Amino acid sequence: MDSPIHRILHPKAVAFVGASNNISTMGTAQMSHMLDGLFPGRIYPIHLKEEKVLGLKAYKKLTDLPEVPDLLVLVIRNERVPEFIDVAGRMGTRCAVVISGGFAEGGQSGMNLQEKMLQAARKHDLRMVGPNCIGVLETRYPFNITYFPYTLKPGHVGVASHSGTYLTHMFPVFKRLDIGLSAGLSIGNEADLGMADCLEYFEQDEHTRAIALYIEGFKHGRKFFEVARRVSKTKPIVALYVGGTPEGGHAAVGHTAAMAADDKLVQSMFDQAGIIRADGAEELYEMANGLTLMPPMKGPNIGIITNSGGPAVTAADKAAKLGLKVPRLAQETVDELKKVMPHTGVLNNPVDVTFSDRHDLLLAILPELLLSDPNVDGLLVYGIFSADFYLEVPAIKKSIGADVIHSLHEMQGGLLDQFIEIAHKHDKPVVGSTFLDRSDTAVRRLIDGGIPFFRTPEQAVKALHALYSIGRYRTLQSGA
Amino acid sequence: MDSPIHRILHPKAVAFVGASNNISTMGTAQMSHMLDGLFPGRIYPIHLKEEKVLGLKAYKKLTDLPEVPDLLVLVIRNERVPEFIDVAGRMGTRCAVVISGGFAEGGQSGMNLQEKMLQAARKHDLRMVGPNCIGVLETRYPFNITYFPYTLKPGHVGVASHSGTYLTHMFPVFKRLDIGLSAGLSIGNEADLGMADCLEYFEQDEHTRAIALYIEGFKHGRKFFEVARRVSKTKPIVALYVGGTPEGGHAAVGHTAAMAADDKLVQSMFDQAGIIRADGAEELYEMANGLTLMPPMKGPNIGIITNSGGPAVTAADKAAKLGLKVPRLAQETVDELKKVMPHTGVLNNPVDVTFSDRHDLLLAILPELLLSDPNVDGLLVYGIFSADFYLEVPAIKKSIGADVIHSLHEMQGGLLDQFIEIAHKHDKPVVGSTFLDRSDTAVRRLIDGGIPFFRTPEQAVKALHALYSIGRYRTLQSGA
Repeated sequence: MDSPIHRILHPKAVAFVGASNNISTMGTAQMSHMLDGLFPGRIYPIHLKEEKVLGLKAYKKLTDLPEVPDLLVLVIRNERVPEFIDVAGRMGTRCAVVISGGFAEGGQSGMNLQEKMLQAARKHDLRMVGPNCIGVLETRYPFNITYFPYTLKPGHVGVASHSGTYLTHMFPVFKRLDIGLSAGLSIGNEADLGMADCLEYFEQDEHTRAIALYIEGFKHGRKFFEVARRVSKTKPIVALYVGGTPEGGHAAVGHTAAMAADDKLVQSMFDQAGIIRADGAEELYEMANGLTLMPPMKGPNIGIITNSGGPAVTAADKAAKLGLKVPRLAQETVDELKKVMPHTGVLNNPVDVTFSDRHDLLLAILPELLLSDPNVDGLLVYGIFSADFYLEVPAIKKSIGADVIHSLHEMQGGLLDQFIEIAHKHDKPVVGSTFLDRSDTAVRRLIDGGIPFFRTPEQAVKALHALYSIGRYRTLQSGA
Repeated sequence: MDSPIHRILHPKAVAFVGASNNISTMGTAQMSHMLDGLFPGRIYPIHLKEEKVLGLKAYKKLTDLPEVPDLLVLVIRNERVPEFIDVAGRMGTRCAVVISGGFAEGGQSGMNLQEKMLQAARKHDLRMVGPNCIGVLETRYPFNITYFPYTLKPGHVGVASHSGTYLTHMFPVFKRLDIGLSAGLSIGNEADLGMADCLEYFEQDEHTRAIALYIEGFKHGRKFFEVARRVSKTKPIVALYVGGTPEGGHAAVGHTAAMAADDKLVQSMFDQAGIIRADGAEELYEMANGLTLMPPMKGPNIGIITNSGGPAVTAADKAAKLGLKVPRLAQETVDELKKVMPHTGVLNNPVDVTFSDRHDLLLAILPELLLSDPNVDGLLVYGIFSADFYLEVPAIKKSIGADVIHSLHEMQGGLLDQFIEIAHKHDKPVVGSTFLDRSDTAVRRLIDGGIPFFRTPEQAVKALHALYSIGRYRTLQSGA
């Protein structure tokens, strides 16, 4: 792939300026992640005084290096940046990540410095991410020069963010919500490469299946929307935009010199470009991850299966608020329900099995029935969990023992596999909602089987709504 | 306290009908939690065949018991409920929790049965929670007959819920978000005692400092709003209402026979009664818990301290959307900021220290400065975390060792105590936002010190907005 972003994410030789042996500096932490034994390239720390940095031979200046680095990383005082860019460019380096701050976000003198840096880069056809960012990571090559270690499995969400925090501080959230990235870029002031370039990279990258954007403003607005309109035809884009109020816009200028635009205007552009809007950081990533797993929804009608009334009511209410429907089921479906459901159950949509130990209903019979119903375009299931919790109850644990729990797990296990098969065979999206997480055996098995699970019924409905919006956008675009 | 809810939550002798030695029945799981050695009362299982139930002597019928139970719990088929109520009432029992379903939520015959049950209860002046519920718990007495074990510390949030799930399935969420309950009631169909009775109990209960309600409809609407209007003058009430759309309302009828009302109408009643509305289950509890810890906010002006631009922009944008202000700071404050801040920092609100190892700024100097500023009514702090994460970076861990981490913790520890002291002394609310949780040493120390931490900047701002609404409501009420 001939994309500057691709080159920046897959360097063979990195010159790193700004790391030392003092762990409380940014640069040191950022270089250290390349030393986990996985990065397949070569690393050259540049340091005026040290012989070694974090155990690697250090060089006093770029021109001392044994080879031309294909990537330059700068975590140094702002005034020194243009010179380093110029020296590297003259050597033949064509990519840089400028982490240093103190540029356009800091007023007129910073703007001048940014312009000077940019001129040095352009002279040598050198492309850059930053300045005023927290670095980038790619999870399969792998390559990570952000401030935090990435210890999660590679995934399929591509991230571009004006804020370094909304990339790196989210790693604990990714872990909790079982989200894996393909790559992530903190783009800072977007002096050269920006949001649109990231979109174009993710469009081509085979591992990226959905894109999550944290946006404070629009540096290259027209290009961004043109690219987004194209990319969202094949890969879902979810965006959190926080610059739309005077307060948000004002804060954004001081942060990344972002060109904020009015919230309503941006919403309308998002709609035209097929961009799904997220309301908060967790939702941004949870939604993007869910969209990597399921096909678009072809109509607005959702089926709900539950063993508990509350989440079903919540889901139905949220669906209506978003413009989705919770339709009556086809007569044949209702006839079948009458045969299989317990006497306390609710025999129409939302289908509530109520309290029941009939795992086969929730996991196999009902999903197959509802997904086969022509009135249903997508499915939400609430209430799946394993027998794990019994072990938390001392009186029960004492009276039954681990072998009973084991056999309950065995019995449920086959049904979970059936659920996974059913969920993937109908070309209709299926999402789960749970207040548990990976720590529950059943939830973990389904997540590993490619079923997205959401923290709340509302989030699961929002994901179905996003899949419906995506389907509608693509239909409209292909008709145009 | 002479409240029927109080009596139901503090029984001395419980007759439990519907538990057996088969762990896969609801009743068995529900009775089992009383066997954890903490419940201070006596338990009498009623069973026709078994000699013992979960190790306790079982009795064939209520009249065989060695004493008059002060609470009857029923987890049996619906038809048998009225008779048990009648027999217990004749014996002198004055309280019951009816967990059984198949009453008003299930159509006309169920409604008739509910009426019959109610007549039996009224004849003996017996008060009841349910039917069609999942039980109740009190965390200090303690007493728990819900479906799940409560293994968390007692707390200060009182819960009343139409859905059993929104009480019991949330225990893992409570654990993750560090939320403790005073008591929780799943009130089901509210045949007798309902939402308003729970409010009156929580109003009196010394351990309850905020109230969380999950509402599907209004059985006793007028009474509920009258009581809520009074209670919210002294204790914050947060509510999740999900019956306001046709779809939500329809699903609610099938669940708890709830009388749903139009969403806008309910919103306006909430506003008049000082009820804070939550948008989802996590928010409901996270907000209620936060409100137990901080005083009302006296004006709309929030100060923001951060070490990262993104969360500050997000918080400022959310604040503006909710009608809060992110004011310029007083000149004296700005003058002080100039003296203490690093050169890359932002010297007005939001105050951004940018990347800095000056923990004293974030934890002591800036909080004191902003809370002393007359332009600031409440404070949000983002960016507090410990040195824990260094241990996740192999290269750093190798080069520094545990003793350096230990000394970093020591140094930060004193500042964390200063932060706690400053946060509590100004009579202005202080909230934190973090993408980490209790597993981080610094966050845990502050949570234990009574500082509410929220999952996202948006949630932290919503909490400040709630505290502002509460302050305004109380001022208006006291003026009227």
